[in-house]
Amino acid sequence: MTEFGQYCTPLLDAITGYTQTDHAPFYTPGHKHGRGAAARLVELHGIAGLQADLPELPGLDHLGAPTGVIQAAQQLAAEAFGADRSWFLVNGSTGGVAAAMMATCQPGDKIVLPRNVHQSAIAGLILTGAVPLWLDPVYDAASDLAHGLDPTAITAVLAAHPDTKAVMIVHPTYYGVCSDVAAIAQICHAHNIPLLVDEAHGAHFAFHADLPQSALAAGADLVVQSIHKTLGAMTQAAMLHQQGQRVSADRVSQGLQLLQSSSPSYVLMASLDAARQQMATQGTALMTQTLQLADQARSRICQIPGLAVLSPEQAGSPGFAALDRTRLTVTVAQLGITGFIADEVLQDLGVIAELPDLRHLTFIVSLGNTATDIDRLVQALKTLSQKSPVLTQPSQASLVPVPYPSSGCSTPLLSPRQAFYAAQETVPIDQASDRISAELVCPYPPGIPILYPGERIMAPQLAHLQAVLKAGGMISGCADSTLKTLQVVLNQ
Amino acid sequence: MTEFGQYCTPLLDAITGYTQTDHAPFYTPGHKHGRGAAARLVELHGIAGLQADLPELPGLDHLGAPTGVIQAAQQLAAEAFGADRSWFLVNGSTGGVAAAMMATCQPGDKIVLPRNVHQSAIAGLILTGAVPLWLDPVYDAASDLAHGLDPTAITAVLAAHPDTKAVMIVHPTYYGVCSDVAAIAQICHAHNIPLLVDEAHGAHFAFHADLPQSALAAGADLVVQSIHKTLGAMTQAAMLHQQGQRVSADRVSQGLQLLQSSSPSYVLMASLDAARQQMATQGTALMTQTLQLADQARSRICQIPGLAVLSPEQAGSPGFAALDRTRLTVTVAQLGITGFIADEVLQDLGVIAELPDLRHLTFIVSLGNTATDIDRLVQALKTLSQKSPVLTQPSQASLVPVPYPSSGCSTPLLSPRQAFYAAQETVPIDQASDRISAELVCPYPPGIPILYPGERIMAPQLAHLQAVLKAGGMISGCADSTLKTLQVVLNQ
Repeated sequence: MTEFGQYCTPLLDAITGYTQTDHAPFYTPGHKHGRGAAARLVELHGIAGLQADLPELPGLDHLGAPTGVIQAAQQLAAEAFGADRSWFLVNGSTGGVAAAMMATCQPGDKIVLPRNVHQSAIAGLILTGAVPLWLDPVYDAASDLAHGLDPTAITAVLAAHPDTKAVMIVHPTYYGVCSDVAAIAQICHAHNIPLLVDEAHGAHFAFHADLPQSALAAGADLVVQSIHKTLGAMTQAAMLHQQGQRVSADRVSQGLQLLQSSSPSYVLMASLDAARQQMATQGTALMTQTLQLADQARSRICQIPGLAVLSPEQAGSPGFAALDRTRLTVTVAQLGITGFIADEVLQDLGVIAELPDLRHLTFIVSLGNTATDIDRLVQALKTLSQKSPVLTQPSQASLVPVPYPSSGCSTPLLSPRQAFYAAQETVPIDQASDRISAELVCPYPPGIPILYPGERIMAPQLAHLQAVLKAGGMISGCADSTLKTLQVVLNQ
Repeated sequence: MTEFGQYCTPLLDAITGYTQTDHAPFYTPGHKHGRGAAARLVELHGIAGLQADLPELPGLDHLGAPTGVIQAAQQLAAEAFGADRSWFLVNGSTGGVAAAMMATCQPGDKIVLPRNVHQSAIAGLILTGAVPLWLDPVYDAASDLAHGLDPTAITAVLAAHPDTKAVMIVHPTYYGVCSDVAAIAQICHAHNIPLLVDEAHGAHFAFHADLPQSALAAGADLVVQSIHKTLGAMTQAAMLHQQGQRVSADRVSQGLQLLQSSSPSYVLMASLDAARQQMATQGTALMTQTLQLADQARSRICQIPGLAVLSPEQAGSPGFAALDRTRLTVTVAQLGITGFIADEVLQDLGVIAELPDLRHLTFIVSLGNTATDIDRLVQALKTLSQKSPVLTQPSQASLVPVPYPSSGCSTPLLSPRQAFYAAQETVPIDQASDRISAELVCPYPPGIPILYPGERIMAPQLAHLQAVLKAGGMISGCADSTLKTLQVVLNQ
């Protein structure tokens, strides 16, 4: 293997070896190489993938405590992504984010996070019992987007809470916006605490100089990447990377064993091995091509009347240090329609976006896209623009952003774990003021939760939520998205 | 859909719809219908399965809060398996077992479990902070196998601990042995607490009268099934079923959202939809055929000199109420070899078992097996028998079972969660006596952990572990499987 280095695929090869060896299978899965699988499944999936769906057979190693081909594949991944050690994840980045928190926080320990963290971090807080110190992300009212963190905010919170055990950030945001991770890593390390990075949307950063700096290159201690999101792995296949000695690797492994299936899918794991080999051996060329496609799309879309695209020129401020140019966030608000409406129009035209919101549509350009895809996107957006009812007669009252209220940084009354396990009740919204929220309440846009489990519900927050709904936004995370009621902690 | 009932596959159909619709994809996964996937992955997996690897697109519903095709597919599954409500699991039965515990136990609550519970239940204990009341399974010294629970043991523990919140059992065991679940359910319900069943190896029970009664039919409240283990789903795809009102369905959903990827694999979910349709429409025929194959194998293997097979005639005692006849546990000890050696010989002969242990080999016969597989199994076992060095000259001193010491039922000194988060140290085994274990230490055979995190380490247990090692058994679960050292909680 050493001779061919990153061209090797040790795990994938071992699986292939089994699929080519005639034998009588008396192990799981029950479909036995697809022979007993439902006809409809074989029809959808093809037989090859079912033949590769094997369990932890002799020679196929064990994900929980790897010593063979999984270990070798993970070592190649660590080398390719610039880590000291890597773990394959079969429960998505979700499991990795929670495991990173478990490895660094005891129950009751303080951890700094931005309020626009992914829901998997909330899961981590509930499972560990760690206490969040929430930071407001930089909010750009002009675009109605939540960006990254200002490093000075981290300096301030660590000064106020010197007993903090870890900092977790999101890099990049869903919109491709990056904080100054190197500066944040320096601040964390000056306090001798680890920086954990949810880099779910940035797995491709390591493979081209024109992409933002990867979290590992910037000095992060633990980094979680959805290899399926921007690279070639299958959905739900991800990696957790470590560098340095600030975190115990054993604790990471222990946490992952609690959070991942003991029957891990070799189909998902093989896709990680293959995706790593692909990027290590062809990554620069693939990313050059991907950047070219995205850059072409951006410049062509910018010329379409009524449309704007988030651009690298906008970078250079706290919370917006760099932009992932492969992510296209197109503002449609000036067409007088919402992103949701635009999304439906585009679907009818054969173009499917990643994420619509009130004012924007976000598109992911990746190594799987072609010049034809870009042509279809640009053409569809031109059609959308031409159809716009208001380009000559603007009337955008309902699309004015609702300014996001700063939450200030304070520790919650209850930890998310305490709130999760507390006795709860459902109350009408007009009786919710001054109660403790038992749920997450997140308005879109901009996707920053206004209430976390354990936080005091205040009148300004309720007013903000109502304003978002009135403006055509959505509320997610909570049981009643119409906001007639809220889940609160029962008063003792 | 109602017209065709269980013939429908709503989720699979919706995925197929997308694979047949030409469009430009700007969403995850990065491989975009396999077009950007690594050549090695396409070679292994085929393109069809990658085309079906889609995210939560419009019309494909959301696993976390389903209202469309996933909800419809789950409703069909509930009907087919005999539940009131079913959840699709993409993180294996592991996630379902922990979620079942989270839905029924608050931190500090007591839950009754057999000591030979699966490691996913330990994960559930650590994540919730519930306090285990461990019960010894019925141990059969003649076969050196741990069976199910004696219902009278549950009556006794609930009398001693009337504040217990739930009982969790394993049904069947890895060896296909079933407890009297109906009796256990009655005892639980008389105490007004739910029965949670890890039925990972019994997903096929509902589909043939000659199989043991399914846990749902026996009255269980929450049941976790690995649809991939004995039916036709892909590895890591499982289901959680509920019946009755003793558990809050909302709490189950909340727990699953903490424990499962927010990017769930539609390939795995589609395989659940397909496997359910297959069993609902052809299950009786498929299980008739599977039972015939297994019965033929059992009767032919029993005639091979030196071999014995665990048989339904042995059922009828506490802890062994019934046997899953599709599971073949072959005792090879009388050949003078271990199951591990026998496993290697069989592999060379083209037959791969599910599970070797010191005295046995266990084989899973499922709907994916053929008469040819059975012929190869029988022939390979005949060859093994003929090769046996000791059939004429028995010398089995090293294969005498080490009697399993009863642990008694007591609450641990620390809960598994407390032990997991406690400061720990590694000590030589001769200094471990009287310390509190920080890890699980499980000898095989019979696979019953002798120490759980939080339990006091006593001299008889250490002696037992050494005896198992000396007899050729293995120790698993702990950091040092040679048992030179143990992980213990640091003395305060």
